[in-house]
Formats: sequence, C-alpha cells, structure tokens
Amino acid sequence: MNVPDLIQKKRTGEAHSAAELGALIGGYTRGEVPDYQMAAWLMAVCFQGMTAQETGDLTLSMARSGDLLDLGTLPHTVDKHSTGGVGDKTSLVLTPMLAVLGLTVAKMSGRGLAHTGGTIDKLESIPGWKAELSDEAFLRQAREIGLALVGQSRNLAPADGLLYALRDVTATVDCLPLIASSIMSKKIASGAQTIVLDVKVGAGAFMKTVAEGEQLARAMVDIGRHAGRNVRAILTDMQAPLGKVAGNSLEVREALATLRGQGPEDLRELCIELAVEALTAAGSPEDARGRAEATLQDGSALAKFRAFVAAQGGDPEYVDDPALLDVAPGRAELKAGEGGYLSSIDALSVGRAVLALGGGRERKGEAIDHGVGVELLVKPGGAVTAGQPLLRVYHRDERGLSRALELLQAGLLIGPERPQVPPLILGRIG
Amino acid sequence: MNVPDLIQKKRTGEAHSAAELGALIGGYTRGEVPDYQMAAWLMAVCFQGMTAQETGDLTLSMARSGDLLDLGTLPHTVDKHSTGGVGDKTSLVLTPMLAVLGLTVAKMSGRGLAHTGGTIDKLESIPGWKAELSDEAFLRQAREIGLALVGQSRNLAPADGLLYALRDVTATVDCLPLIASSIMSKKIASGAQTIVLDVKVGAGAFMKTVAEGEQLARAMVDIGRHAGRNVRAILTDMQAPLGKVAGNSLEVREALATLRGQGPEDLRELCIELAVEALTAAGSPEDARGRAEATLQDGSALAKFRAFVAAQGGDPEYVDDPALLDVAPGRAELKAGEGGYLSSIDALSVGRAVLALGGGRERKGEAIDHGVGVELLVKPGGAVTAGQPLLRVYHRDERGLSRALELLQAGLLIGPERPQVPPLILGRIG
Repeated sequence: MNVPDLIQKKRTGEAHSAAELGALIGGYTRGEVPDYQMAAWLMAVCFQGMTAQETGDLTLSMARSGDLLDLGTLPHTVDKHSTGGVGDKTSLVLTPMLAVLGLTVAKMSGRGLAHTGGTIDKLESIPGWKAELSDEAFLRQAREIGLALVGQSRNLAPADGLLYALRDVTATVDCLPLIASSIMSKKIASGAQTIVLDVKVGAGAFMKTVAEGEQLARAMVDIGRHAGRNVRAILTDMQAPLGKVAGNSLEVREALATLRGQGPEDLRELCIELAVEALTAAGSPEDARGRAEATLQDGSALAKFRAFVAAQGGDPEYVDDPALLDVAPGRAELKAGEGGYLSSIDALSVGRAVLALGGGRERKGEAIDHGVGVELLVKPGGAVTAGQPLLRVYHRDERGLSRALELLQAGLLIGPERPQVPPLILGRIG
Repeated sequence: MNVPDLIQKKRTGEAHSAAELGALIGGYTRGEVPDYQMAAWLMAVCFQGMTAQETGDLTLSMARSGDLLDLGTLPHTVDKHSTGGVGDKTSLVLTPMLAVLGLTVAKMSGRGLAHTGGTIDKLESIPGWKAELSDEAFLRQAREIGLALVGQSRNLAPADGLLYALRDVTATVDCLPLIASSIMSKKIASGAQTIVLDVKVGAGAFMKTVAEGEQLARAMVDIGRHAGRNVRAILTDMQAPLGKVAGNSLEVREALATLRGQGPEDLRELCIELAVEALTAAGSPEDARGRAEATLQDGSALAKFRAFVAAQGGDPEYVDDPALLDVAPGRAELKAGEGGYLSSIDALSVGRAVLALGGGRERKGEAIDHGVGVELLVKPGGAVTAGQPLLRVYHRDERGLSRALELLQAGLLIGPERPQVPPLILGRIG
C-alpha cells in the first residue's frame, strides 16, 4: 500500500476499494500510517465525500480494528443509539420494554461528557448498581432476563477513537461519512442483529436541520444494511430537553415514572416509537404499538427494569420507591421576567447548566454529583405570566449555581404569541 | 492562535490574513504546529486555493522563517530561476551576460537531484572551482566582478523544506499556490531586487501544458511584486532537452561554445531572451536585445565567465580550452530503426539516462561522475534514415549503459511526417 497514492485517489474524487480502506484503517490503528497522512486523507474525504459502498466498507474496517462482540448465542439481539441529547433517559425506559417484547438487549453504554449525559452515569444513581460485568456474566444475564447494560470496557473499534481524536484537532469533525462511520463502527462491533437509531435534530443536537438529520440517518441505515444488520432510524426534535428533567437522579425518577405508565408525554411517546421501530426492524411488526404500550401499562417493563437493576447489584428498593434516590437539597427558581408564551428552552443551555452544577464532566474520569439537575416547570408553547417560575434548579451548596442560572436565563425565550412547537417525531428512515 | 479554527477557515473557503499565515508558518517552523494539522491545512488549500494576497503573504512568511540575505549594498542585483529542465545550462551563459550588462548576480544555486541537473554540479566539472565562499568573500566578489555563484549553504526559507517534505507524503505537491510559494520563498530570501523566471512546459517539466505554465508564472510574478521585487517570467518549451547535450562536463563545453558566439541556437536564444527580460524588469529595456547579443559576439561574457571561474578557485585554462574538460571515454550510439522524421526525444528519458550513467544522484550527498552524458545528434523535426545515429552516449566502463540505452530508446519517436515542433518561447508574463 502506497499511502500518498491512496490520498491522491481520494483527492481526485475516486472511490476506494474495500481492500484499500482496510489497509488504510488497519495501518493507522497499528501506528504504521502516521497522523499527518491520515489527516490529509480525512480532509480530502471532507471535500470529496464517500459513496455508500465506501462508507460501509470504511465502517467495517473500523469495526474490525478491535474486538468484535459475539452475541450469536443470544436470540433477537437489539441495540439502540441516540446521537446525543439533553435529558434523554430513553434507554432506561426502552431497554426493559424491548426485553419484555422478546428481544435481547446486551448493550454497551457510554458515560456523559460535556453537556451530554450518559446512561451509565444515570444508572449509577441507584446505590449498588455496577457497570462492570465479566463477559460470561454479561451474556448469562442477557440470556436469563433479556437485559444487560455495561460500560464500554472492551476494545471496541479503537480506530474510531484514534480517528475522532485526530478529527477533533484538524477541523474534520463535521463530515457526514465520517460521523456516520464513527457511530456505526461501535454499534457493529457491539454485535446486535437489530439496531434502532434516534437521530436528534435541533439547537441541542449536532444536526441542526431535518435535512442534515435525514442524510445522517440514511447514511447510518445504509451502513448497517451493508454490514448485514436490521436497521431503522427516526428523527426526533431536540430543540428543548426531552421530558421535564435533566440530571442523573432526576432522570432516573422520571424514567421510573414512565415505566409506571406516567411520566411526561414526549418521553413516553419516544420510547413507544423506538420500540415499534425495533420490533419492525427485527421482523415482528404486528400490533407493535399496542404491544409496546402494554409493557408500560401492565407494569411488565417496570418489573423487568427492577430485575435488571438487582442482577447488576443495585438496590431494588430504589426502583420501588424513587423518592429514596438522592436529589441535591438546594433549590432555586428562574422566573418569567414578562408574560406571554414560552417560545423556547435551549437544550444546550440546560445541558451546560447541569454541567456547571457538577452533574456532568468536562474530562473523562471526573467524578460527578448525581443529585443535581434542572427541572422544566413549563414546556415550550406554554403560556406564562410575569413572575411565574419556569425552571427549578437542584443544587448542592450553591456550587455552580450562579453560572447555571446565567446559562439557563440565556437559553430562555418568551414571546407575545404562541410559538409553533415542532412535532417530536420529524421523520423515519428504514 | 487556534490552529483548528485556521484549518476550518480554509476548509470553508475564507481567506487568511497575513497575521494568521505568519502564525501558522512560524509555529510550524518552530515545531509548535504538528505535522497532522499542517497536512489537513495543506489539503484544504489544495481544494480551496488561495487569493493572490494570501499566496504573497504565505510566501513572505516562508521567506522570513530563516535567514534573509541582505544584498542591499550591491547595485542592480538580479536572480534567475528555472522550474527545472534537462540539459539546461542557461545559468552558465546567462549570469556572465547579466554581469557584463551592468547587473549584479550574487546567486545561490542548487545541486542536481533525480533527473534534473544543477548549476553547482556543472561548475564543479572545472577543476579547482569551489561552491563555498564566506559571506564576506561572496559579497566582495559580486561587487568586484558582478558575478558570484555559491551552493545553498545558508538557512534559507527552512519552512519551505519542511513543507515540501510533508507535501511529498500527503499528496499535496500538485497545488498551484503551494508550488509558487515554495519557489518564490527561497528567491525572496535570497535578496535580489530583480528576478527572472523560466517556467518550463512540456513532457520534461512539472507543468505539462501552456495554460498550467501561465498560471504558475502569473502566481510567481504576483508574489514577487507583493514582496516589492521586479519580476518577469517566460514560458519555454521542455519537450526535448535544451541544447544538444546533457551531462555536466558536456554542458559546460556547450555553455562555453555559446559564450563564444557559437553553440546551439535554442540555448543561445533562451539566454538572450532571459537577459532581455532581466534588463526590462530592472528598468533598462532600451535596445536590450542588441546589448545582450553583443555580450556573446564581442567575447565580453566569456571574459566575465573566465574571471568568475578564477575568482572561485577554478583553473581558467579549462575555459580557454574546453577540450581539457574530462569527458568519459566510452562511446555508444543509438541508431534509427527506421527512416522518417524524429518526432520527439523525451527530455525526462534523457535526464534519467544521465542519472543511470552516474551523472546524477538519487539522494542528496551522493558523488557523481561529471564526465558521462548524452548528446543529441538529431533534434526533433529532423529527417532521419534507417541506421542513422540519433544519440551518442558518453559512458565510463559501461556503467549503467544498457539501462541508459533502454531509457533513451523508450523516449524516442520516429514518424512518417515532419512533426510540428513547438516554438522555444511559449509566452511572457510581466
């Protein structure tokens, strides 16, 4: 392999073969292809793009750069990925629903970074719950109760981590085939046969427009099919945070309420939609919506979640009585300065406020305060009067409070007319 | 300076300020900006290009990355650059002509690499001649006789060397503003007030078409003006080698013949044209052609060359009697396999043949055999009969002979009709 020739090929807009991409990614992962050559190639990709075939082959090369999880002994495995939102506790509700519906969730989840939360952090709000399982225990639990969630301890798609770090410092992050392959390489290495994708669109998301979100969703669905997986995607609104709370313990409480058939309508609806997509992708579309709704109404999803928490060392009493979950005692409210309608609550500002309060981390490995967070007392579109509380902040000893209030204030918009609130589901790709 | 922001700026097609380019190039030269960021930026430049203003500012940043030669104490300094050809001994003839014409040549010249020869190697065919002078001796000689030529021992535009090495391995060599700034950064650091450029076009040159050559010439002239220099360029044909010989001693012999008012017509014409451009650029265009021709007819350029050789330690007897110059004793001829017209002799093949014979170097620092070379017995356009000798090879102990003959044979084309031979001068930019 002559690397300059490969770079030149992409520079002139030619398509790479699977063998070429395999040699390039393999060589880079082994340290044989230097950063400067990969950086030039990445920039050429940003300008020339990649065909669906190339993007699929690139993703497979990245997936094969490390461990490939073998879930072949488990029935109907399913995985879910969200492109990252604020207040997104969907996985906590959806995964037990899927397990009840006959699918197997044996899933790696991430921790939060910057303004985005992570499922593992949220689950660690429950005393005793552990994100580490041996491979054997992970597979056994998935087989026995249909649901196991662990942290990303395996060497999954190391090429993705290397490439992402390089893209971050060479202005090559914003590039569709590179974004799509980054996400899908880890999902494919994670081994599930069915993958449902939740592509967030809006101010709080990486994709700012529906058109951009559709392109990303289409690229990821194509990659999944190229790898022989069942994949479907939905596009969902992420202007405002999902549900009414952001912050780890608060989000677990809201997820538990939803599993009880209560909880905010947008969260409940998104979980049902994702369950329908998963059942459809897995080849079981009959009355999918009715069956998904039933798991929330008859308590079966809640019971599954309780069993899952207990299996991984968590105290099930916290599932039975969410009030036990530690929530920071400090309270502060942000009030409307004028009357009218709440036009928007910027999800990014809410995420950054939680971070400022200590509920998230700036760098990998930092400890976080699970108890802090933000509660939306009014959702966008609601009428407000001057002086009405709009947001409640849960803080500990006023740590980061003034910065959080500043961020939240900047993210609030009140207008004289009732705003057009976008629908939750903006599109479906499958 | 945030380097990813600068890369992003170029990625989106915005123009850089002089301060940004200075920070980027300075940081790279000091090792503060890593190769991978520079590689991404270079690739973005290949796609988005640069404005004339940016290219000028980039070049000045590169020129300022090392020593700047101060020729301010010398009158009417002039420098010449050729983009590289085969059999191009122009500098040997042109520089004494310019010195006679009242300009001062205080010039750094290069050594040959790969198939391209270098002026310093050619001069070293003359016993005793030395390419090393102290700064003081260099300036004194230039002042006293108007002509001093030394090797590139100073730290001129080190950013260019670093960038070129990176471009070479990242498929970013072929990019107009990067090519133009590379050449001109060294010329500007070399300090001459007037610069004449000979842009070669054709099979034996980097620029394959007149349009490409014109773009490069225009970019370099613009850069020179941006730096406050007098610059003119001509485009010249480099399908076939210039003159009739390639190889160091052989080329010195041909240059000496030309200085005597003899020598091949194309070499003589090119030297006169370049002298006219230099006089015009330096503000002395009156009867430039007549004055330039006179230096070859009245022996003044030859006398100047003799004085120059002696001043740098060379034995002037070799100037007086070129037959003394060592030419390898082995001879071989390549004969026409059929009759017709000689359509072309590929300059690149001739350059590679000289290299194979030991007359050039693959890597910097290698010793070379000054006596070997190739002589064209027929120039393109000439009628030939089957069996007529077309090329004579000067070899030593048959070293590289079979490879050289193979290369030369592959570069020869004989056709049934008289070919259109392109004119020597293809254009003028000034």
